[in-house]
Amino acid sequence: MNDQVDSQNTPEDETEDDYALRNKVVVAAVDAAASGDRERLEEVLEPLHPADIADLLEQVDSEDRVSILALAGDYIDGEILSEIDEDIRDEVIEALEPEVLAAAVQELESDDVVDLIEDLDEPQQEAILEALDVVDRIAIEKALSYPEYSAGRLMQREVVIAPEHWTVGDTIDHLRAHDDLPDQFYHVILVDPRHRPTAYVTLGRIMSSRRDVALRDITEDSFRTFDVLEEEGDVAYAFNQYHLISAPVVDTDQRLVGIITIDDAMAVLDEEHEEDVLRLGGVGDESLSNSTLEIVQRRFPWLGVNLATAILASFVISIFEDVLAAFVALAVLMPIVASMGGNAGTQSMTVAVRALATRDLTGSNALRVIRREATAGLLNGFLFAVVMGIVGLVWFGEPMIGVVIAVAMVVNLLAAGLSGVLIPLALDKAGVDPALASGTFVTTVTDVVGFFAFLGLSTVILL
Amino acid sequence: MNDQVDSQNTPEDETEDDYALRNKVVVAAVDAAASGDRERLEEVLEPLHPADIADLLEQVDSEDRVSILALAGDYIDGEILSEIDEDIRDEVIEALEPEVLAAAVQELESDDVVDLIEDLDEPQQEAILEALDVVDRIAIEKALSYPEYSAGRLMQREVVIAPEHWTVGDTIDHLRAHDDLPDQFYHVILVDPRHRPTAYVTLGRIMSSRRDVALRDITEDSFRTFDVLEEEGDVAYAFNQYHLISAPVVDTDQRLVGIITIDDAMAVLDEEHEEDVLRLGGVGDESLSNSTLEIVQRRFPWLGVNLATAILASFVISIFEDVLAAFVALAVLMPIVASMGGNAGTQSMTVAVRALATRDLTGSNALRVIRREATAGLLNGFLFAVVMGIVGLVWFGEPMIGVVIAVAMVVNLLAAGLSGVLIPLALDKAGVDPALASGTFVTTVTDVVGFFAFLGLSTVILL
Repeated sequence: MNDQVDSQNTPEDETEDDYALRNKVVVAAVDAAASGDRERLEEVLEPLHPADIADLLEQVDSEDRVSILALAGDYIDGEILSEIDEDIRDEVIEALEPEVLAAAVQELESDDVVDLIEDLDEPQQEAILEALDVVDRIAIEKALSYPEYSAGRLMQREVVIAPEHWTVGDTIDHLRAHDDLPDQFYHVILVDPRHRPTAYVTLGRIMSSRRDVALRDITEDSFRTFDVLEEEGDVAYAFNQYHLISAPVVDTDQRLVGIITIDDAMAVLDEEHEEDVLRLGGVGDESLSNSTLEIVQRRFPWLGVNLATAILASFVISIFEDVLAAFVALAVLMPIVASMGGNAGTQSMTVAVRALATRDLTGSNALRVIRREATAGLLNGFLFAVVMGIVGLVWFGEPMIGVVIAVAMVVNLLAAGLSGVLIPLALDKAGVDPALASGTFVTTVTDVVGFFAFLGLSTVILL
Repeated sequence: MNDQVDSQNTPEDETEDDYALRNKVVVAAVDAAASGDRERLEEVLEPLHPADIADLLEQVDSEDRVSILALAGDYIDGEILSEIDEDIRDEVIEALEPEVLAAAVQELESDDVVDLIEDLDEPQQEAILEALDVVDRIAIEKALSYPEYSAGRLMQREVVIAPEHWTVGDTIDHLRAHDDLPDQFYHVILVDPRHRPTAYVTLGRIMSSRRDVALRDITEDSFRTFDVLEEEGDVAYAFNQYHLISAPVVDTDQRLVGIITIDDAMAVLDEEHEEDVLRLGGVGDESLSNSTLEIVQRRFPWLGVNLATAILASFVISIFEDVLAAFVALAVLMPIVASMGGNAGTQSMTVAVRALATRDLTGSNALRVIRREATAGLLNGFLFAVVMGIVGLVWFGEPMIGVVIAVAMVVNLLAAGLSGVLIPLALDKAGVDPALASGTFVTTVTDVVGFFAFLGLSTVILL
């Protein structure tokens, strides 16, 4: 029944945030756990979606988490476990009774079990694998033999296949005869006699076709396969770029080994974005569940690198101590040149890093983008040179200070535009994630160039 | 046929990037267009996926784009059009013959047509709407009457529904009788007599159930509906959080008006991430297709705000001209304190902004996160205070300079940790996107506090 539905468009105010876990729910859970009131704790957890229970466990502090799990550990099922952030996953697993853990894991699909245990320590992995029956255990161990972040880790092994010569009727009869179909599937994959996937048919097409229609006559154009060793980031990109819903995974002999579905690709896309944002912000890999000591430890190296580059910039300043001693106005104004350069560089870099991540910045347009950034840097440089020249003149009443800061501004914004695109491109070429290191390099360039241009020019012109 | 597939895990090197458009493809297309060789241009475009043709058009410069479209405009179909970045969409649409445009638009689903035309100028919208038949046109105009970024804009109106009392057999017979089913559908939605959706059934369940099974006995737990006015960002969040594949959209009377599918939610998630990254980097809304003048214009206001804050910081420095004139070493060292504060603040802010976007930072854990950031700021402050105290002492041979920079470092990293979480929280509370403005405020705080603490302490201790 295909229907074009009509409706009235009645505007309505919806200011309440329906998704963020309500404060009172979290507080109620913590209270109930603290007072050992299992019944009340259950009442709080009962209406929540497993993903929200996982969020709740992430949002409370470690102590409260332990007391919630002690009271309602048997409430934790497989779905909640697989939703829990990996930073606290080992803590949660340790708090669970072995039977609860076993029951929770047994209900999961193979890809979720892999996702659950891949970051755990050996003994915890063992404990979970032992809870599975032999067939599942072998399947999981097989999946774990693929490299981390590969399609092999991402795929589920439960697939629905049909020989190429089958009709719609054959397929429906066969599906009816099986009661162990995957939870979610969207395509029936056609395989040749050597078990190589050759095409797929959507369930919608099968359902709307007559029983005598051959599957091979109703296949989809969107069909594409992934190599089992392909990187999960590339898989997620392809799902998004080509609007895939599911896609078979093949080994080096092109034989079917599993299937990846869009929900898993969406999760990877989300994780990759998270990684990009955090790396651009100079934070490696961190979440709100990390303890204070963990975040001190994780941020320290990044700050250390920044300290080194800041000392380098200070060293550049120290070369010009004479002119600074003569004109204290220079000390007042010099951070402006560096700050503007740093900001302009960050702008260019953000666009470049993002464009590299989305494959929009490639060899074919790199030159054009570099030219564009250089020109834009120069233009904004001239605009702010005029502004700052006037500010410098008015503030300190010394025309030459205005000239110096104006020229330094142009030079530094040009440097910012160029380094903002060249550094990410170079890092990408070198196989380093540009999100990881571009920021430090770019601001080092703009600090050094900014101080050097401003103080160097001052020395030449003012001294 | 449900199958656990076995494979050999043969490692293989795959260093080539399979997805980025090859440089030579773009160059070949530009060359063919420049020399007016339509046949060669077609040869280049023929093997490409519509999404890749759209990328190609985005990657070439404006002039080449015009010549490609002039030569192979009739090659552009609806799918390519709907993939093209909105920055160059109007340019492409203008270059197309009216018949080509009409043919391209007619093949699209309603949600794609809406997405295509919502950002176009009135006359271009009109031209496209005129190409549609009356029923489609009314449907699109209806969709456009919903607010931008609402579920109503995102949904497609083509839905597959069934009365609640139907069996699997009824449903299959009905689907077979219809040849205008949507391209992609994953669920049959059950509606009550008032056309309100009450549950859904996956196609997989229907296919694997006997004909006499009632639909209401095989419905899915994951069922949830969205209000037509709900924000698309919230919809995308819910799809990701609750692993939805499709979900009905209802009006204020709870009647079915359309359906949203996961691929559209994935695209929104991707756009929201893009926006977050760009905003955090101080770039409003920009892509590689923008011209130099466009990016100058878009970045100028952000740099202007930064200039104002940099001048504020300079003003703080100017208060301490006396001590700077007496000790030139202070001018050399002061950017280090500001730079470390800026970086530490950006770290805290990045984590906070990201956690707000993923709804992990809420009222229930805000206090804990603030405490954590303050403590971490103090701890890293002490660590770098020791390092910088020693550097200051060794470099300038003046113990009190070491003491001053050490104390200023502790103060500024504490300010960084606190402002890095408090500012995003305050902006979020005020209804401003924290990704948009946090960076400027945080670095203003760390610059001002850094210079003030360092130079103020110097004045007290050294003068």
